[in-house]
Amino acid sequence: MISFSLQATDGRARAGTLETPRGSVQTPIFMPVGTLGTVKALTPGELDQVGAQIILGNTYHLHLRPGEEVVQKLGGLHRFMNWPRPILTDSGGFQVFSLAELNRVDEKGAHFQSHLDGTRLFLGPEEAIAIQEALGSDIMMCLDHLVSLPANEVDLADALERTTRWAARCKQARRSEGALFGIVQGGTSPRLRQRSAEQLLEIGFDGYAIGGLSVGEPPQAMYETVAACAPLLPADAPRYLMGAGEPVDMLRAIGEGVDMFDCVLPTRNARNGTLYTRRGKLSIKQARYREDPAPPDADCPCETCRHYSRAYLRHLYQAGEILSMRLNTLHNLQFYLDMVRGARQAILAGNYDAFARDFLERFNSGLDD
Amino acid sequence: MISFSLQATDGRARAGTLETPRGSVQTPIFMPVGTLGTVKALTPGELDQVGAQIILGNTYHLHLRPGEEVVQKLGGLHRFMNWPRPILTDSGGFQVFSLAELNRVDEKGAHFQSHLDGTRLFLGPEEAIAIQEALGSDIMMCLDHLVSLPANEVDLADALERTTRWAARCKQARRSEGALFGIVQGGTSPRLRQRSAEQLLEIGFDGYAIGGLSVGEPPQAMYETVAACAPLLPADAPRYLMGAGEPVDMLRAIGEGVDMFDCVLPTRNARNGTLYTRRGKLSIKQARYREDPAPPDADCPCETCRHYSRAYLRHLYQAGEILSMRLNTLHNLQFYLDMVRGARQAILAGNYDAFARDFLERFNSGLDD
Repeated sequence: MISFSLQATDGRARAGTLETPRGSVQTPIFMPVGTLGTVKALTPGELDQVGAQIILGNTYHLHLRPGEEVVQKLGGLHRFMNWPRPILTDSGGFQVFSLAELNRVDEKGAHFQSHLDGTRLFLGPEEAIAIQEALGSDIMMCLDHLVSLPANEVDLADALERTTRWAARCKQARRSEGALFGIVQGGTSPRLRQRSAEQLLEIGFDGYAIGGLSVGEPPQAMYETVAACAPLLPADAPRYLMGAGEPVDMLRAIGEGVDMFDCVLPTRNARNGTLYTRRGKLSIKQARYREDPAPPDADCPCETCRHYSRAYLRHLYQAGEILSMRLNTLHNLQFYLDMVRGARQAILAGNYDAFARDFLERFNSGLDD
Repeated sequence: MISFSLQATDGRARAGTLETPRGSVQTPIFMPVGTLGTVKALTPGELDQVGAQIILGNTYHLHLRPGEEVVQKLGGLHRFMNWPRPILTDSGGFQVFSLAELNRVDEKGAHFQSHLDGTRLFLGPEEAIAIQEALGSDIMMCLDHLVSLPANEVDLADALERTTRWAARCKQARRSEGALFGIVQGGTSPRLRQRSAEQLLEIGFDGYAIGGLSVGEPPQAMYETVAACAPLLPADAPRYLMGAGEPVDMLRAIGEGVDMFDCVLPTRNARNGTLYTRRGKLSIKQARYREDPAPPDADCPCETCRHYSRAYLRHLYQAGEILSMRLNTLHNLQFYLDMVRGARQAILAGNYDAFARDFLERFNSGLDD
């Protein structure tokens, strides 16, 4: 099981430590997304290098390929992919509701078809837990019922009530030592969010996620919902904002007391040629970088910035070279993990607000060279 | 400039050392192909890890993208791609004759169109040297006139005479400290090969390549041509068999006194899911590997074989993950470099024939597990 302790708070921001049987995680933390048993383009050794402490695995994807029974036979996901540190797995729900062809959702769960070959499949709370346990997850997520925003209050309320019932069944279904997080739903309604949080707290989980955000709502609505949600959650449990990953979103959420994040942005953008630098995003395909000898970010300690020029990275990108995706991904994850490390240090030092303000000011200043 | 010395001979096989301003190369050696300023999927650090001592760069490809003037402005190819050890560049001729749309070849050189965008371009001997010098090549190749096999003796003779005239112009055009290799042509005719070798020797080069082979002729014809060619070349200069890369071809050629090899096979096959093991080739996509916990090759010291199972590698391949191409390429290059290291040790120990026989017997025995 896991335990969570706080080393410091600064306003509502928190610096904590999540202890797991596979090692400890210093929060606030960003979790790189390892969809199919690999954080795309990188080895576990490189994840270590950039300071990753915990990664996310996608239950839906691994269920389809290679199947959790294969992963289990090979010794579980950690051994299968050679990552010995903690892994959080999602429930598969988000992909069922977004990626697969959804046929029907009822009280039992979701009936859907694989996005790969159309196979008819079923995912209910018990199945979501069984798959995550077969994978050997350190932190499992409850299956939640998602509705796309905007939605009316009645649908949102129905979905959150079902999410609560499914959460209770997930907890009931757990057989392993893996930790289990509940997911607060309720769209952007403070009233519904409060109801969801209260119901989940009554069941009791090892940690709590804020779900159903970063799905297209205006940023301000997300910030307000996070601000309304976080104080409802227990101080002594980790709080995880699912899927939010723009630097500004993470820094705002950290300021509201969120501890954990995951997002495909740094890795997906890397593959598409967008690099995050301390002075903003850089699109490496631009002709202005054709002969630019500077590294992507002169202040970045990553291998990419130490050894390669923008000109070389532009060339690799234009030529469609695999090394382009590797070097860009390595850099972007270093940026994200440096950002949360900086946030943690600032919280410990009691100057988080200034840190976040300065970071965003510089990030929004644009590349001046 | 370079120098070449022999440490041992065993029959016609040779163990030598090629000294270059960027470090020494122990021969026989395999040169991984770094077409576009990167050995596809790997970093220079990983090339070091598997024992690469010299790599090949493709003049044609780099001329088109990013252009040698960009590479030169960024400090030359070594610095551009962060590979400090020796680089041999081809002349671009092979790609002009095979990949580009060839419009006309005359005494001046080849008029062709880029395979990327149809731009009309020209490559003559002087241009081939100028581009290689701008790239900062340690070993440059003369531009040769290629004819596809089978060809009649008249065409072959014309091509080799032109190759000789172009080789003289290449030597004349050289301005840098880079070494320059001549390329013996003449198809599979011992008489023409002899004429070509004699003409090139008269001009005098730092090393000699056997070109125009491994282009679809029967293996026996290649072996016989290599056997006829190698003894015509000076004992104190390196001999390079261009483009031949099946293990059996390399081991036979080493037995005839060849020192250097390049081939896309290990890297291209890696990306297509074919792994070279001491017991033969392994197609990782096969269903039999679905739950196989063994590494690709239990006797291989590479990172892939130390940390990953066939089951995981099959999964990565099936899922189209970038890590699949990385781990497979790393392994295949380790296999190739271990093979030439083994050949060198056997030559030094005076048992090369037994080594080559045992290696091929095991390689042809097939995977028994």
